[in-house]
Amino acid sequence: MKIGIIGGTGPQGLGIAKRLAIAGEDVIVGSRKEEKALTVVGEANEEIKEHNPKELVGMANEDAAAAADVLILTVPLQAQSATLKTIKENAKGKVLLDATVPLETAIGGPVSNPLHINPGSAAERAAKILKDADVKVVAAFNNISNSHLANIPDPIECDCLICGDDKEAKEIASDIIEKIPGLRSIDIGPLNKAHLIESITPLLIGMNIKFKSHYGGFRITGIDFE
Amino acid sequence: MKIGIIGGTGPQGLGIAKRLAIAGEDVIVGSRKEEKALTVVGEANEEIKEHNPKELVGMANEDAAAAADVLILTVPLQAQSATLKTIKENAKGKVLLDATVPLETAIGGPVSNPLHINPGSAAERAAKILKDADVKVVAAFNNISNSHLANIPDPIECDCLICGDDKEAKEIASDIIEKIPGLRSIDIGPLNKAHLIESITPLLIGMNIKFKSHYGGFRITGIDFE
Ligand SMILES: NC(=O)c1ccc[n+]([C@@H]2O[C@H](COP(=O)([O-])OP(=O)(O)OC[C@H]3O[C@@H](n4cnc5c(N)ncnc54)[C@H](OP(=O)(O)O)[C@@H]3O)[C@@H](O)[C@H]2O)c1
Ligand SMILES: NC(=O)c1ccc[n+]([C@@H]2O[C@H](COP(=O)([O-])OP(=O)(O)OC[C@H]3O[C@@H](n4cnc5c(N)ncnc54)[C@H](OP(=O)(O)O)[C@@H]3O)[C@@H](O)[C@H]2O)c1
Repeated sequence: MKIGIIGGTGPQGLGIAKRLAIAGEDVIVGSRKEEKALTVVGEANEEIKEHNPKELVGMANEDAAAAADVLILTVPLQAQSATLKTIKENAKGKVLLDATVPLETAIGGPVSNPLHINPGSAAERAAKILKDADVKVVAAFNNISNSHLANIPDPIECDCLICGDDKEAKEIASDIIEKIPGLRSIDIGPLNKAHLIESITPLLIGMNIKFKSHYGGFRITGIDFE
Repeated sequence: MKIGIIGGTGPQGLGIAKRLAIAGEDVIVGSRKEEKALTVVGEANEEIKEHNPKELVGMANEDAAAAADVLILTVPLQAQSATLKTIKENAKGKVLLDATVPLETAIGGPVSNPLHINPGSAAERAAKILKDADVKVVAAFNNISNSHLANIPDPIECDCLICGDDKEAKEIASDIIEKIPGLRSIDIGPLNKAHLIESITPLLIGMNIKFKSHYGGFRITGIDFE
């Protein structure tokens, strides 16, 4: 199974890419520009080589979408629509994990404020944009901070909430998430729950700012998930 | 310090009342009807007596608001405005902890769906209704399940997020919250953050339903709050 990170050159995508490469996964880092992907991947491979990773591969987003079996989208909200349109054709029938969080930064506001959008979540928006390409969208990685991902090899003591309308796609998402030490994947239901997941991120960002951290996350308590 | 629970005859208010009484606090349980408050309090005192509590006292909401120094509001959203209007005069200058969560149940929808209101949170709505009565509103107890509260004497392994615009009021809220074993109070900022706290509740309710629990809560990880 090949994993393609669309917009993988930013801290979120690259953090996921490195963690998964270290876990032994085949990961392709996508960018609008192949050249940028190659440069970023070269540096990243050098940086993590002591952890015996599978080598990261760099490609243009469209090529990454074609070559990968599962896609992870890690672009800012304002780039979500344009980016998905470039990969739509090559993403047909595949699973896409969407990490996009609607934040007021998208319109020049504070990063700790949610942005209210229509449909009510970035994940539903992705599904709408990808409609008729039979892409199975799963909201995932929205609650995991890039600083935590970059803090290799420390385990990430956080739960990663996911949701989506395709059971098999969510199982694939959970398998990928739980390859990263510490992360626990929790399926909270259908895709229309994504706003509940996405609205936790500005809360965590605001807490990070207030309490001078970069690692804010959470563990669900009181529920037995077995 | 006397604590008055406005709408304290329901599971949330009575759960808080019992826990605080066991912690040795002076607690008044308020109701629209004094008689109902007295009946409920009689049963509750009987039920918790083995834990050596301070005796709970029952009153009409207005009288509870007058007699108490700090108020906790635990009524459904659809009763919030009417209830606050009845106590407004007697609540002047006091601290009010608002546990109200905007859920679609208020309009006959599912309890696991948030209801979008204007202003964007029940706590800000309380502040608006109480405007010119100089009441210091703190969002609190929104994320703590009544089943957990009722599960006496087990500690409640949950964080209780709070927010508000008055520092001293939030300190009072935290002191009260942390009287209940297990609970940790986390101040996430001003009252306009309340929607972030309140939207976690339908997430937890949905998870409780999906995973057959009643005790869903969370602990923030990765942040040092000292
Ligand atoms: N950072 C976090 O801690 C975190 C945590 C949870 C979720 N998220 C979410 O994950 C996503 C990515 O976060 P990030 O911090 O990694 O973002 P980022 O660095 O701003 O962007 C990631 C990549 O997206 C591409 N991109 C940026 N602006 C674009 C535009 N206007 N049009 C097209 N492509 C553009 C760029 O790739 P190329 O230039 O190579 O094409 C960039 O490297 C966001 O939606 C964020 O909300 C982030
Ligand atoms: N239950 C939970 O686990 C939980 C968790 C977190 C937050 N909350 C929030 O806490 C609040 C209370 O929850 P609850 O489950 O205890 O609610 P509840 O049992 O439905 O109501 C609490 C009390 O409010 C009064 N009340 C009910 N309907 C009213 C109406 N139409 N007009 C005026 N008063 C009315 C009643 O008191 P009297 O008849 O004695 O006046 C009732 O006993 C809600 O906003 C809820 O969202 C609940």
